[in-house]
Amino acid sequence: MAKEKTLKQQLYTIIFEAETPAGKLFDVLLLFFITASVTVVSLESVVTLRREHLHLFLGLEWGFTILFTIEYLLRIYSSPKPLKYIFSFFGLVDLLSIIPSYLSLFILGSQYLLVVRVLRLLRIARIFKLTQFINEGQVLSNALKASFAKITVFLGTVILLVVIIGSAMYVIEGTASGFTSIPTSIYWTIVTLTTVGYGDIAPQTALGQILASFVMIMGYGIIAVPTGIVTVEMSKSDKKMVPTRVCPNCHQEGHPVGAHFCYNCGYAFEYTVD
Amino acid sequence: MAKEKTLKQQLYTIIFEAETPAGKLFDVLLLFFITASVTVVSLESVVTLRREHLHLFLGLEWGFTILFTIEYLLRIYSSPKPLKYIFSFFGLVDLLSIIPSYLSLFILGSQYLLVVRVLRLLRIARIFKLTQFINEGQVLSNALKASFAKITVFLGTVILLVVIIGSAMYVIEGTASGFTSIPTSIYWTIVTLTTVGYGDIAPQTALGQILASFVMIMGYGIIAVPTGIVTVEMSKSDKKMVPTRVCPNCHQEGHPVGAHFCYNCGYAFEYTVD
Amino acid sequence: MAKEKTLKQQLYTIIFEAETPAGKLFDVLLLFFITASVTVVSLESVVTLRREHLHLFLGLEWGFTILFTIEYLLRIYSSPKPLKYIFSFFGLVDLLSIIPSYLSLFILGSQYLLVVRVLRLLRIARIFKLTQFINEGQVLSNALKASFAKITVFLGTVILLVVIIGSAMYVIEGTASGFTSIPTSIYWTIVTLTTVGYGDIAPQTALGQILASFVMIMGYGIIAVPTGIVTVEMSKSDKKMVPTRVCPNCHQEGHPVGAHFCYNCGYAFEYTVD
Amino acid sequence: MAKEKTLKQQLYTIIFEAETPAGKLFDVLLLFFITASVTVVSLESVVTLRREHLHLFLGLEWGFTILFTIEYLLRIYSSPKPLKYIFSFFGLVDLLSIIPSYLSLFILGSQYLLVVRVLRLLRIARIFKLTQFINEGQVLSNALKASFAKITVFLGTVILLVVIIGSAMYVIEGTASGFTSIPTSIYWTIVTLTTVGYGDIAPQTALGQILASFVMIMGYGIIAVPTGIVTVEMSKSDKKMVPTRVCPNCHQEGHPVGAHFCYNCGYAFEYTVD
Repeated sequence: MAKEKTLKQQLYTIIFEAETPAGKLFDVLLLFFITASVTVVSLESVVTLRREHLHLFLGLEWGFTILFTIEYLLRIYSSPKPLKYIFSFFGLVDLLSIIPSYLSLFILGSQYLLVVRVLRLLRIARIFKLTQFINEGQVLSNALKASFAKITVFLGTVILLVVIIGSAMYVIEGTASGFTSIPTSIYWTIVTLTTVGYGDIAPQTALGQILASFVMIMGYGIIAVPTGIVTVEMSKSDKKMVPTRVCPNCHQEGHPVGAHFCYNCGYAFEYTVD
Repeated sequence: MAKEKTLKQQLYTIIFEAETPAGKLFDVLLLFFITASVTVVSLESVVTLRREHLHLFLGLEWGFTILFTIEYLLRIYSSPKPLKYIFSFFGLVDLLSIIPSYLSLFILGSQYLLVVRVLRLLRIARIFKLTQFINEGQVLSNALKASFAKITVFLGTVILLVVIIGSAMYVIEGTASGFTSIPTSIYWTIVTLTTVGYGDIAPQTALGQILASFVMIMGYGIIAVPTGIVTVEMSKSDKKMVPTRVCPNCHQEGHPVGAHFCYNCGYAFEYTVD
Repeated sequence: MAKEKTLKQQLYTIIFEAETPAGKLFDVLLLFFITASVTVVSLESVVTLRREHLHLFLGLEWGFTILFTIEYLLRIYSSPKPLKYIFSFFGLVDLLSIIPSYLSLFILGSQYLLVVRVLRLLRIARIFKLTQFINEGQVLSNALKASFAKITVFLGTVILLVVIIGSAMYVIEGTASGFTSIPTSIYWTIVTLTTVGYGDIAPQTALGQILASFVMIMGYGIIAVPTGIVTVEMSKSDKKMVPTRVCPNCHQEGHPVGAHFCYNCGYAFEYTVD
Repeated sequence: MAKEKTLKQQLYTIIFEAETPAGKLFDVLLLFFITASVTVVSLESVVTLRREHLHLFLGLEWGFTILFTIEYLLRIYSSPKPLKYIFSFFGLVDLLSIIPSYLSLFILGSQYLLVVRVLRLLRIARIFKLTQFINEGQVLSNALKASFAKITVFLGTVILLVVIIGSAMYVIEGTASGFTSIPTSIYWTIVTLTTVGYGDIAPQTALGQILASFVMIMGYGIIAVPTGIVTVEMSKSDKKMVPTRVCPNCHQEGHPVGAHFCYNCGYAFEYTVD
């Protein structure tokens, strides 16, 4: 009984953590198999390749499915709280990664269902979470969270502009130039404002081209706004990493390193941090 | 009489403000109806949908029009100064939102007039104004106002470049490659400089492609200028929001607003800044 | 004699400066005529318009030419050193603005020569120089000058990449996909790296599309480099505008506003700037 | 013997260094010949030019090859450790620059092998390394190195998004709209997210266009992330170049390096930092 418990704990350390050599090896292998399996799913969708190597693809796919199924069962087994794991975000992603292959046995023509298997990629996010990249990701996501309200205002304004300009282009250009409806015109405005510019729809009239020029210059310019927002937030998020000093008397935080007195209680610091 | 006055005031609080639960509910409902109505206007412009669901669209549209008309009348009624409201920016937008539907009864073939109804979206800006996003919008618009002069110089230079390069491309490429006139060539230059790149017009001669390459690299590079301008202004606009305090004894800067003692010389501040 | 001298000086103040009301009016009129004349040159290049309104265009063009010729002669007359003006940059631009019209009398079919008249736009740069925008332009051009060496390194690296990747695409895709020669392939690489993306040439092979994806992501990412360079320089150029204090004893510059002593000679400042 | 040693050393100074006038001249000539030779390789790939000027191209190419061969042999001769040079990065690049021409004598139809000669461009990097641009390049590459971990997280997230969205577009649009396989759909997603937008493949269904709009706005917005990262790192990398001094008496920061007195308390610094 004590031995089984130890085995469970050992499995947990290998599968869910990344500190031990075995845990790191497991992560590297998992990363390899996920990438390989998604590559196989992608290549399988190419008609000429599927026709020629049907059996190879089937073999590889069932190999991956069986591997991931064993891994899924081991995860359930080694979890201290199996139910919590099963209904967690990553637990559901793990299940979604294997279930389409089994369903394809029962449901014919479920070709599009198999695409769900690319969601296996999301499992890589778990490996990222365990590694040294976590701090960098933290700085990035903090900056994006802090920018959220400003970016919402910005996106709201952009959507407003896009709908109004799209409607105006519908009136100006009309169906002859490909602006067949307001939704299509809004789509064109987004394509133009974001400087993607497919060219499948393009204004033909002089007035339409003038308005289009205005949209392009605007789109070219307002990219500065989200960039400015994120840069400022990232700069602040980055500075917070600069060490500050805590008062040993009143525990007030945020003194500059060269401070001599606590600015809250006036306590004289005994030494100066370098 | 006193009761009617109270009713007016209550209506004003609900319709024009957002502090009370009723006012918030009103704003959420209005946001929903504006979005729904603009979606209906958009979908109505799709020929296949209009043909199939003509009566549904007509019904929905008149429903929205009647709702917004009632809201408009209530706004006039509850305003302390009705005329001031009617001729205010948002008062005119409110009127523009309902008038095209009524005009369509008298004027036949006013299909394009109906597009004016998408201006209803501008009414969402009023709701935004009442909410927590106002501060974020303030930071953004302050930064853009402060950048105005610099951005004017930048835009002026860009327009100068675009006209001169456009004229040069007209001479180099000529009408055979689609550069049929100077305005068309200027349009192509804007399409290229802003990295939109439709591809409806593209240079064919070696010299034209060399000049085009130059325009692209320039366009790719000078996007840095407005971005730099806005980032610097946004950084300043952001810092102004965090006031700090200077020690009146040793003039050390950078104390938090709530500080009681100077962290440099230990001087006790006589009052606390709010 | 004294009167003539005064007239000359008065003309100089009106034509070359912008401080007096007459000088400002002159600048506004000049701005209007330059813009109008360039608009006429542009519209004249549209074949349908030229055919219909030939006499109108000719009349307007000769009107502008005579106006600018009078202005040019007045500039020569009122200059204290006429030769210096004639051979200055703006003097040559002024001459280039009028000479194509006169040449068209003698040389037949000089249609493309007339395009030179859009260089009139450069004359607007002179008006800009006289106005309040000069400071803003200064900040911008200082920042760009300071970034010059860094941007040269960046552009050099980009050109290196573009030539090597372009040659690789020529080998990979070959002439069948439109990559007919190395110069054409380099042109395609610039179109892709700068995210312009005309779509007139696009890779067809799997390997070509993988390399193209790599180029796109790289182009998408390295735009960050010039932006970062310009933002940092602009931030420094902007900070230099923050007022600093000069020591009245040794004239050392650059003291913070709250300084009590000169950091160079130790001189005690008598008062503290707010 | 002593003379030969001096000749070797003189050659080393001229060929490998750039401090002496002869060394600078050598670098300028090398830069010219490399640029000229790569230009010839490029133009030779244009079919019409190759047909007309075959002998000119052959002559020029053999001229460059002989020149670079002599230079290569002199580099080996003058190196203190010839083997170390031969197997260094630049030694291999130097060899790669000349070997394709000699191979073309023995192998017929090695047209694509000749493209390898554009790698001669990499030799320019060596000249850059010797010049004043080295500091600027240092600031840039430091900033990029410091951003590496953050940019890896960012690129990882982008690749994840691109694969999942590409697969979704394959399901939504299907082969009729040109989304013939998952790799092709991923290629389209990269083309759209990076705002390149060729337009060779474009979504046709309403749902596909909505998802495409989402991808475009996302691509337009997340460009802010690498820009923010690089700007912040560049700002830090730049600041490290400007050391400041702290007063040992009152700990006031921010004195210029050449300061003699503290500007806050007037304390005389005992020594001056270089």
